Amino acid sequence: MLPSRLARIVDLFARLPGVGEKTAQRFALWLAVEHGEVATELGRSLGELPNLIRPCDRCGNVAEVSPDGTALCSVCSDHRRDPSVLCIVARVQDLLAVERSGAMRGRYFVLGRLLSPLDGIGPEELPLQPLMARIVADGVREIILATPPSVDGEATALLLARELADQKIKISRIASGVPHGGDLEFADQITLGRAIDGRRPI
Amino acid sequence: MLPSRLARIVDLFARLPGVGEKTAQRFALWLAVEHGEVATELGRSLGELPNLIRPCDRCGNVAEVSPDGTALCSVCSDHRRDPSVLCIVARVQDLLAVERSGAMRGRYFVLGRLLSPLDGIGPEELPLQPLMARIVADGVREIILATPPSVDGEATALLLARELADQKIKISRIASGVPHGGDLEFADQITLGRAIDGRRPI
Repeated sequence: MLPSRLARIVDLFARLPGVGEKTAQRFALWLAVEHGEVATELGRSLGELPNLIRPCDRCGNVAEVSPDGTALCSVCSDHRRDPSVLCIVARVQDLLAVERSGAMRGRYFVLGRLLSPLDGIGPEELPLQPLMARIVADGVREIILATPPSVDGEATALLLARELADQKIKISRIASGVPHGGDLEFADQITLGRAIDGRRPI
Repeated sequence: MLPSRLARIVDLFARLPGVGEKTAQRFALWLAVEHGEVATELGRSLGELPNLIRPCDRCGNVAEVSPDGTALCSVCSDHRRDPSVLCIVARVQDLLAVERSGAMRGRYFVLGRLLSPLDGIGPEELPLQPLMARIVADGVREIILATPPSVDGEATALLLARELADQKIKISRIASGVPHGGDLEFADQITLGRAIDGRRPI
């Protein structure tokens, strides 16, 4: 029913995470019927995106490509950050979430994926070599494993802890428990079990 | 925290209907980190959009611009449709929804807006002149008012019914009642009241 070029835009929008057919059509019509100027600017920006933004050469965070062809993110190019403390995360989104917390004074390493035997992702698919090289190059002395508290995230954290065990590095895992403002009544049993296991003296 | 060009894309995505800051960031990172090829194609398609797609010259539906500069949508260029039956809708989305029902054999007129005294949209903001011209040009003999069953939609339908009263045109309003598969127990009282007012002999 839609013109073919508009239908193609609906298809592309529907590939975005969490966007279904109806939402994609809503986006496309909003741009086509009422907001041509947003379509034009978004089109130009997205067209340039792959040439201007790419994963940071050092940590995998999003970074602007500099004129000399290298890409260093805002965290890696900030000399006030402690390079000896490394926070390992699964995705860029997780890195940004940790940054928002303001609790991390070191740098990051984005794995890009987690161990997932069901999806056929084994240890050899993880960027262990680049991680080791980074640890040596930066003289890392402390590693914080900030993969998510899911089955895959825990398995990945465990694997990394084992791989790094003989490096004389302090390794820790982020705490898992009842979230701030959360209700014990509605916490699932695994979360509550972890909150009790991970109890701290006050 | 994000590179400025990526932050700008997040801002643009956040202008889409129903998209908040977090969802917009999710879209932008998905495109920047993993799906550069989608970013490139979506960028090109959106950039071309305002030149290739515009409201149909006749009804306001989305239409491809033809080489001679005119734009006629798939419904208006379909000669099997009955031009004497006109369905008036508020938005292109509503036109597409009516089309999907398969119950409309005539053509459409998209108002683009509804009466909304609170937003300062009075009768003079509605495209009444183009509508009258269309009715005369196409020899319309039946009009179906398919504005939504909301306060603004009802007010607009009432205004149109009044404006068109002396035109010797059969005018009807789409039925409002309990939706197919709906539960009477959970229908609100206005909907149920309308379902009873609009009862039909079987």
